[in-house]
This record gives sequence, C-alpha cells and structure tokens, in this order.
Amino acid sequence: MENKILIVGTAAYDSIETPLGKREKVLGGSGVYASLSSRFFVKPILFSTVGEDFDHNYEELLKKHSVEIEHIKKLKGEKTFYWRGSYLKDLNNAETLKTELNVLEKFETAIPEELTDIPYLFLANIDPQLQAKIVSQMKNLEFCGLDTMNFWINSKRDEIYSLFRQISIMFLNDAEVKSLSDETNIFMAADKLLSKGLKNLVVKRGEFGSVLFSKERMFICPAFPLKKVVDPTGAGDTFAGAFMGYIAQTRSYDFENLKDALIWGTVASSFCVSDFSVSAMTSITLENLKKRKDEFKGFLL
Amino acid sequence: MENKILIVGTAAYDSIETPLGKREKVLGGSGVYASLSSRFFVKPILFSTVGEDFDHNYEELLKKHSVEIEHIKKLKGEKTFYWRGSYLKDLNNAETLKTELNVLEKFETAIPEELTDIPYLFLANIDPQLQAKIVSQMKNLEFCGLDTMNFWINSKRDEIYSLFRQISIMFLNDAEVKSLSDETNIFMAADKLLSKGLKNLVVKRGEFGSVLFSKERMFICPAFPLKKVVDPTGAGDTFAGAFMGYIAQTRSYDFENLKDALIWGTVASSFCVSDFSVSAMTSITLENLKKRKDEFKGFLL
Repeated sequence: MENKILIVGTAAYDSIETPLGKREKVLGGSGVYASLSSRFFVKPILFSTVGEDFDHNYEELLKKHSVEIEHIKKLKGEKTFYWRGSYLKDLNNAETLKTELNVLEKFETAIPEELTDIPYLFLANIDPQLQAKIVSQMKNLEFCGLDTMNFWINSKRDEIYSLFRQISIMFLNDAEVKSLSDETNIFMAADKLLSKGLKNLVVKRGEFGSVLFSKERMFICPAFPLKKVVDPTGAGDTFAGAFMGYIAQTRSYDFENLKDALIWGTVASSFCVSDFSVSAMTSITLENLKKRKDEFKGFLL
Repeated sequence: MENKILIVGTAAYDSIETPLGKREKVLGGSGVYASLSSRFFVKPILFSTVGEDFDHNYEELLKKHSVEIEHIKKLKGEKTFYWRGSYLKDLNNAETLKTELNVLEKFETAIPEELTDIPYLFLANIDPQLQAKIVSQMKNLEFCGLDTMNFWINSKRDEIYSLFRQISIMFLNDAEVKSLSDETNIFMAADKLLSKGLKNLVVKRGEFGSVLFSKERMFICPAFPLKKVVDPTGAGDTFAGAFMGYIAQTRSYDFENLKDALIWGTVASSFCVSDFSVSAMTSITLENLKKRKDEFKGFLL
C-alpha cells in the first residue's frame, strides 16, 4: 500500500506580479504547493479549509494530480484565503500587497480519527498554536516537518520553541532563522536552535540553496542553477513537500537520507519557480525530476 | 625545482573598520594577499610598485613567508597606494571611504627578462591596459588568471574583453559578472562571457560560495561555513591566489583539477577573513588548510 503523508496548510487564491508577468486569483497556498510536490513520492492528504468560492476546477486539478482532497473543508458563507504579492522590487522576497485571511480565521483543527495514525505530517505555515493542536492529535508520528513565518516568530516565539521536541525537522529561510534565534549568522543560529531541542533544521537561502543541520552533521546544498525565474511563489512549500514526501516514501531518517531528501526538494522547487502558480508542478513528471536530479549532481563535488 | 608563479598586483596600506574592530594603515593589496595564499603551493614572485614609505618590516614579513620580494619596486619620493574601507553597513561589500592611488599611477609594467618565461601568471586587479602590456611580454604562458573591478568594467570594458583569448580564467564577483555581461543572472552572464572567448570563469558570491564555469561544465561550490567573519578584506585575492598556486603546482588544467583548485581557494579565503589584514594568512600552515579542506568536503555531497 502506498505510504501517506498528511499535509496541513492553506489552499489559497494568489494574485502575483513578477518581472515576467502577472496573474490574478490563481491557485496557491502552502498546503497546495506542498501536496503537489510530495505526490511524486507518496499519497498526500491535504487537510485545509477554504471558502465556498473555492473553484471546483481547482479541486479537480488537485485530485487529478493524486492529492486527496476530501479533507479540504469548504465553509459556507466564507471566502478563501487571499494573498496579493509582488516580486517587482526583489525577486528573492515577495512584497505583500494584500492579505485577506477570510476563512483562515476559522481554520479547522480537529483531525478525523482515520487520519490520526498517519506517521508523516507536514505542518505548513499556520498559527503555531494550531500546529500544536494538530500534533497533539497524532498517535503514530514518525517524522514531522514544520514551517512558520516571521509574523509568528515575532508574535508567538515561545509557542514555536515548545514545538521543537515534538517535531523532526523545521524549514526556515535565512531571515526567519536569524529572527527566531536572535543571531546574525545562520551557523550560530542553527547551533542555538538545535541546543534548544530541535532535531533537524533546513535553512533555505533562495537562489543560494539550503543548508541541512543536525546535531553532528551539516550539508550545504546549492540551488539548481536557473537562467530564468518566473514566479518564486510556493518555492519553499514545494521544497518542503518534496523533502517530506521522499522521507515518507523511504522511511529512513539517517543523515544520508535527509541529504537525498534535500536534493529532491531543491530540484522540485527549481521547477516550481519556472512558471506561474502551480503550472510547472502540475505538468512535470517524476521522470523530469529524476533527470534534473542527475543533472544537478553533476554540478556538485 | 619548485614551480613559480608571477603575481602582478598591489602592495598597499589599508585602513579598515568592521563590526568587530578597526585597524589603521595595515598591510594589504591584491598582490600581497594573492602571494600569501599561493605560497602554500608554489614560489610566488610578487611584481608590484610601492612608495618609499613602504615599511621594511612588511617586506621582511613577506620574505619570511616565502614570497619573493625583489621585484617589488620602491619608488623614491612616492607614497604607497592607500585604501580606507568600512564594512560597518554591509559585511559582504566594502564601502570605500578613501583611495589614494599615489605610486599606482606609475605602476611598473616592464617585466624583467628572467621572469618572462614563467608559465603561471596571476593578474590581480589593475588597469586592464597594463594587464594587457604584461601578458604581451610573457613567452611561455600556460595558465593565466585575471581579476578586475567595476571601475574598469565601466571605463575599459573592451580592453577587458580583448584579454579573454589570452587568459585561462577570470575571477569576478556577482556584481562584476553581471555588469561585464549586461545580464542580471549569473548563469546567463557566464554563457555570454564564455561565448566571447573566455575559457573559464569563477563567479565569487561571498558567503554563498562560488561557481566555476567552463564551456561544457559547471561546479557550484558553497563557502566554508563560518560563525564569525572579522575582516573580509583580501578574501577574493586570497581565493584566486590559492586557486592559481594549486594549478601552478599541479600543472593540470582539466575541469576536475580546476574544481580542486576552487576548493583550495574556498578554504584559504575562509582563513583570510577570520582576522584583520594578513594576520591569518601569515600564521596558518599547509596543514591547517588541508585539515579544513577535509572538514569542508564533509559538508558537501
């Protein structure tokens, strides 16, 4: 039987402008991106909450790409989470022009009984207190990944810290890891977070790749070299989704396997940013990923 | 007999301030840094011009660290090149507070006969027209490295381009490669410069490492992970010096050997930035470099 991963995150409408174009109200959301990249390795069960305006075609698109959608709860009279962002000033960092939380304020946290024994869980960026509620319901967690954002680091730092011992790995970008640790250097930051009980950490550095930290080991991984970035939206969730999917498929948690997972994440996110919204992630195959992974290894030592 | 490398560049007085301290009129200069890191692999002959104020103790320091100093020409009545820079605003990019060219305006370009058959040459950052004059005097060049800076890219771009076919490799940082190629992406930039006759290119990305390009191959190399950077001055020249020194020692120019050279450069520059001026580069041994190189490889795939 195919392994499963439970992915808790948003399904959203995004309006995006980048130097290469713009899109209005397209499919986005952390849970959507993570699901669409974990699907290459395992069956993703997307646990999310949307408004009644959530397009049926998007549900069909997810279903068609192996994402289990029956736990995307649609709330009547509510609108789907909406985000408008621009990469015109800086392709590496989105400028948020508008955020409408809408249905996110009523995000569902009661995990149905039949999902509570899934051993793999990815908690995309939502309120850390909701993340904690979800973790506490899981009965057989083997490997749990956690994402967050600077908004929560600034407002609910202790709640994030208290999740450290319950999770297996955290995904943070450069700015987030510095902020969460109060350090200015990512290697100092990693030391500090690991000393506080975090088992593994991935620091994402955008076009400069990522670094994987565990207690005794470190792996510095460049990004896949891209000549053109169309839309960086979802790159981090795509990265984490592929990472977690690979771990859930292989069920091995030693450092060498985490390194492989990091490379899959790197390769998946390189596809994600090559087109708007989920276009790339709904058109590639596992073969595309494998081919690029081999190509990528040729650029490394 | 030990292999030799001819290094043409500056010997200078630097005044530096960084978040971790400041130093007044300490030894610096592209030629000095490159010589002090190439010395671990070959005999560096530093070809430079200084003023009569150049401290005799600095000459002795270079000599003590295997740098041949008899071709550092001391001009009477002249003052040594002086640079004052600050890293307070950005540890990755020096802010130049003062530049006194002084003796550099009379930089010697007539290479003594006995040096013209040295097969290895590193041209640190000086006027590209002077660099061209020096290359034209060399009779047996096997491998020549070239550095430059944005000032020359903006004022003498064609002169740099016309050096491409005479040299083996160019060292540029991220901003320089974009400027020289008129591209905003380093991979596009590399394609363009290689298509114009450049054989090999290293793009230096500071704390994010470097990328080595040749016609058909690419090697993406992270930086050595450092928890503290004291003074970034000279990192690029130290990098190039170790790279070129290793090539001059091994006399092999295939891509795998260039990759090794890049790793030596990475490791050498990581020592350079760990203390002010040339302090680190005059206190470490080849053993220190070797040990860190092994440690570094453990962080890569």
